[in-house]
Amino acid sequence: MTTEANPAGYTYDQDLPPSPVSRQRLDELLTDVMWAEEDVPALRRAGAILAPRVAELLDIWYDFIGSTPHLVAVFHGPDGEPDADYLARVRGRFEQWVLDVCERRFDDRWLAYQEEIALRHHTTKKNQTDGVESPATHVPMADMLALVVPVTLSIRPFLQEGATKDDDVEAMNQAWFKAVTVTLVLWSRPYAGELW
Amino acid sequence: MTTEANPAGYTYDQDLPPSPVSRQRLDELLTDVMWAEEDVPALRRAGAILAPRVAELLDIWYDFIGSTPHLVAVFHGPDGEPDADYLARVRGRFEQWVLDVCERRFDDRWLAYQEEIALRHHTTKKNQTDGVESPATHVPMADMLALVVPVTLSIRPFLQEGATKDDDVEAMNQAWFKAVTVTLVLWSRPYAGELW
Repeated sequence: MTTEANPAGYTYDQDLPPSPVSRQRLDELLTDVMWAEEDVPALRRAGAILAPRVAELLDIWYDFIGSTPHLVAVFHGPDGEPDADYLARVRGRFEQWVLDVCERRFDDRWLAYQEEIALRHHTTKKNQTDGVESPATHVPMADMLALVVPVTLSIRPFLQEGATKDDDVEAMNQAWFKAVTVTLVLWSRPYAGELW
Repeated sequence: MTTEANPAGYTYDQDLPPSPVSRQRLDELLTDVMWAEEDVPALRRAGAILAPRVAELLDIWYDFIGSTPHLVAVFHGPDGEPDADYLARVRGRFEQWVLDVCERRFDDRWLAYQEEIALRHHTTKKNQTDGVESPATHVPMADMLALVVPVTLSIRPFLQEGATKDDDVEAMNQAWFKAVTVTLVLWSRPYAGELW
């Protein structure tokens, strides 16, 4: 069910096919990133700090993407220019993603939506959700993965500015780094097939 | 040319085929991770701190891998048990990798050796370098990528302990994070083919 408050194309709460990634495999990935019980409250607290400033965060990320030709190429329309409507629709979901990383439980629904996002980066479903005719048939996996760095480093000033004396900025930033890494790894699944 | 000081199977300085990844594409990946001029000296300084303690660092990583069944499975021999000789040979190159990340220039030779490492994780060349008959035909890409987290977070205490008052631990750790991310992304190339 989509409510008016949901971003365009956001289908987290809809019936999605189950992810081909099992809960057991997810647990292994969480082990890989040294996920620990204390990461959950650290991430929730990060979410509380980031939530009121998520538009500012997206301004930074979109400035970065917009000023980097090989990244903005993913958003080109048929005329070879950035498609403003496409960028705006993705931005809405990107903002929601920040909140989802911090607040959602890692359950079957979460896995199913990560798979949906994976397919929307891959040739399988890119451009479909937003009804665009982009010459970019997929998001190159290399760029998608490399963005773990700006996405991790750029939230630190926000956490520092929003932290109270009871908050541990390093712990919040590490929990975010772990969670973002797991989501990016899940998004890489369709690219590697059996070798993922 | 291999000298006695080189780890088994380490072929950085040998004639390798050029990487299919161009210097231009490497520059794009460096842009993705916000690589900056000041990262070079930060990384060199990190290398100076880590070099005398690289065996300790590998102890930590190998304890982690060894105690994690789905990770150590990559090192199984035909009997389904961890192959001690295989582990030891890879460990030598892993130690060298820490130094190479910090000290090598990102040039054509560096790219060629990253591709060689990529193929040694992939079905193309896994097990060949060390002459093992492992039932693990490849390193699952998901685990390889997820290890960016422990590999980034675990060096921080070493940097803190080795830092002098003129060192910026955060800058060194960030430069390491960026460089490791680029190498892991390069290692993922054979897994994604045209969509990389």
